[in-house]
Amino acid sequence: MSTSRRRTLAVGLIGPGRVGSALLTQLRAAQTRLATAGLELKVCGVAASKRMWLDCDDPDLNYRCDRAQIWRPTDLAQFAEHVLGQDRHALLIDCSANDDVASHYAEWLAMGVHVVTPNKLAGSGSLQRWEAIRAACCEGVRFRYEATVCAGLPVVQTLRDLLDTGDELLAVDGMFSGTLAWLCNRFDGSQPFSALVREAHELGYTEPDPRDDLSGMDVARKLVILAREAGWALSLGEVEVQSLVPPSLAALSAEDFMQYMDELDSPMAGLLARARAEGGVLRHVASLDRHGKARVQLAILPASHPFAHTRLTDNVVQFTTRRYHDNPLLVQGPGAGPDVTAAGVFGDLLRIAESLEVRA
Amino acid sequence: MSTSRRRTLAVGLIGPGRVGSALLTQLRAAQTRLATAGLELKVCGVAASKRMWLDCDDPDLNYRCDRAQIWRPTDLAQFAEHVLGQDRHALLIDCSANDDVASHYAEWLAMGVHVVTPNKLAGSGSLQRWEAIRAACCEGVRFRYEATVCAGLPVVQTLRDLLDTGDELLAVDGMFSGTLAWLCNRFDGSQPFSALVREAHELGYTEPDPRDDLSGMDVARKLVILAREAGWALSLGEVEVQSLVPPSLAALSAEDFMQYMDELDSPMAGLLARARAEGGVLRHVASLDRHGKARVQLAILPASHPFAHTRLTDNVVQFTTRRYHDNPLLVQGPGAGPDVTAAGVFGDLLRIAESLEVRA
Ligand SMILES: NC(=O)c1ccc[n+]([C@@H]2O[C@H](COP(=O)([O-])OP(=O)(O)OC[C@H]3O[C@@H](n4cnc5c(N)ncnc54)[C@H](OP(=O)(O)O)[C@@H]3O)[C@@H](O)[C@H]2O)c1
Ligand SMILES: NC(=O)c1ccc[n+]([C@@H]2O[C@H](COP(=O)([O-])OP(=O)(O)OC[C@H]3O[C@@H](n4cnc5c(N)ncnc54)[C@H](OP(=O)(O)O)[C@@H]3O)[C@@H](O)[C@H]2O)c1
Repeated sequence: MSTSRRRTLAVGLIGPGRVGSALLTQLRAAQTRLATAGLELKVCGVAASKRMWLDCDDPDLNYRCDRAQIWRPTDLAQFAEHVLGQDRHALLIDCSANDDVASHYAEWLAMGVHVVTPNKLAGSGSLQRWEAIRAACCEGVRFRYEATVCAGLPVVQTLRDLLDTGDELLAVDGMFSGTLAWLCNRFDGSQPFSALVREAHELGYTEPDPRDDLSGMDVARKLVILAREAGWALSLGEVEVQSLVPPSLAALSAEDFMQYMDELDSPMAGLLARARAEGGVLRHVASLDRHGKARVQLAILPASHPFAHTRLTDNVVQFTTRRYHDNPLLVQGPGAGPDVTAAGVFGDLLRIAESLEVRA
Repeated sequence: MSTSRRRTLAVGLIGPGRVGSALLTQLRAAQTRLATAGLELKVCGVAASKRMWLDCDDPDLNYRCDRAQIWRPTDLAQFAEHVLGQDRHALLIDCSANDDVASHYAEWLAMGVHVVTPNKLAGSGSLQRWEAIRAACCEGVRFRYEATVCAGLPVVQTLRDLLDTGDELLAVDGMFSGTLAWLCNRFDGSQPFSALVREAHELGYTEPDPRDDLSGMDVARKLVILAREAGWALSLGEVEVQSLVPPSLAALSAEDFMQYMDELDSPMAGLLARARAEGGVLRHVASLDRHGKARVQLAILPASHPFAHTRLTDNVVQFTTRRYHDNPLLVQGPGAGPDVTAAGVFGDLLRIAESLEVRA
């Protein structure tokens, strides 16, 4: 922020969970620095699923949620009104993973409230809702969602810049799941695949129910978000997703799944053997081609492929465009974690702040 | 650009060379699309080293430089005044590689004219001038230079976002020369190093005088730009640069250098042998550590290092930060070429356009 134009931005946070509280900590730490650079951040409300705090622009009160003076049952309409206030710039940040919250975006944007989120549900949900959200962004009101794809890595903005400067997207290829990257990297035949899933589960690398990772749906959602960013009307149902969970395991309870997981082992061992016979490696990849065809699958890649040499849990995204044709543009690094995800959200906030008109 | 606020931006281009003319083509192609999105671009002047065209906001005239109606000897003060005009947003784009042009930035910024450039000379030149430029950026007037480091790859902005969201830079490592990356990648002992330099020269991969690449100074400049972005007052003279050109070859004329280049071969063969003995590879790397110590050198990297597996002419930048600590954030791809460089400049223009106040 190299400007000294003074602007004030009222911020309401929905979802003070892992990412949301990391964000509050980051905003608090930055507040003085931002104020010096001309941006007054007023965190004036925090809403969780059951209750919300509306704290008269006293950041200190807001941050100490537990001891906040004014709290009441969550009512998102009231929350938005409160944050919007009178004649000021306002931003709602959705750090929930809730679909109902996402259903409010269009309405908030239409009220003139900017929206930023790491929540993938709007970007990968119904096309109709997505289009309503896009249509509601006008007169300088912004909706940003960098952290929905690979958390804090510069992915959505990079694609946006390519397109806005007149480049043409030919393909996206990537590994969008740190968990699946780790599993593929570690899977060398020395232990059965299910043992690795159990280890990842114990390390906290997987979702509470590892099938949420193994199904590939979270990866498919990210692909949908990127496809739509490129202007393609893709829906989640159109992504060809190869789930690692066989139908026999899909219907089980979470506990039963953990118990019967070794059913994964023999098909996975077969795939590994095939990869080796071909001199390749097994990687969980997402891809989108120039016709908008989207796939998520376990692929056998040649050992020389850039994805064959990624670091354990790294995400990677590769854009092939008219300009980046022979050698694509590649971004790689950790694609999850509260701190880097919160930083992705914070970056969106800063981008919006830069575009704010000065108001009296 | 998702806003319908209408803004006008007057643009003057200095340096219609390879990058500059690619940029003019890109701007022309985007003009209608940008206008629909609310941004009226008026390319109202082009200045080369000897003459300039001031074309009364008629983009068509400007683009057809050769046939332009109104041209006169280059006078950058007059040029800036013309582009600034009356009560409008104005941007000067310096696509020269000229130091005199860079000496005008502070003055232009102080006039309220935004400045964007791929020219490395301001960012890596005297600290005093650099600080004067930074100081001149106020009241929303911007100086941007994404394309100075790795052309169109998202590098400077990525570092900026890390820092602005409160992260702390611990190290930068990278390969910032496509030419040297290509030479290192291809150098396998099957031919002498000088033969590869000759091949690269013929392919147009090197500067007209290959010593401009082999000296490592261009790489060092990029490192200085990144260090300063991180707030470190680094000067070019403080970078420890290992030149591949031995002193005996440094003083020769360009023709003589091409003739006596085989003097490079025996030291390079020695380095390659050492790398192999250690099971590593030879790479031309730039690095900046947390104490601001900057080096540019031919390094022996382990075969498992991410830089060991880059594509022929790819650039790569790796940021290690407090948040990206175990696994750094990495950006890779082509880091030169008129089209991608122009796109980096264009991206800066768009970022500035987003921040413009609406004026009557
Ligand atoms: N964690 C990561 O590494 C990561 C990476 C990229 C993207 N994301 C995305 O970031 C979002 C947050 O992730 P997280 O890991 O922070 O989740 P989390 O720890 O489970 O936090 C979710 C928060 O949302 C709140 N919430 C749920 N339903 C709500 C509702 N209807 N109204 C208001 N608040 C509601 C929860 O409040 P209660 O406690 O009251 O239920 C909780 O504070 C998710 O969309 C996730 O997909 C996360
Ligand atoms: N090419 C790349 O891939 C690349 C990548 C990254 C960054 N860059 C940077 O981008 C810049 C442009 O590179 P390029 O390859 O386009 O160079 P170029 O083809 O040599 O063009 C340079 C242009 O600058 C003009 N110029 C020189 N001195 C000038 C002066 N005093 N006043 C006005 N104009 C002047 C030249 O005009 P005349 O023809 O009249 O001399 C020419 O139009 C350089 O700073 C370069 O380092 C280039």
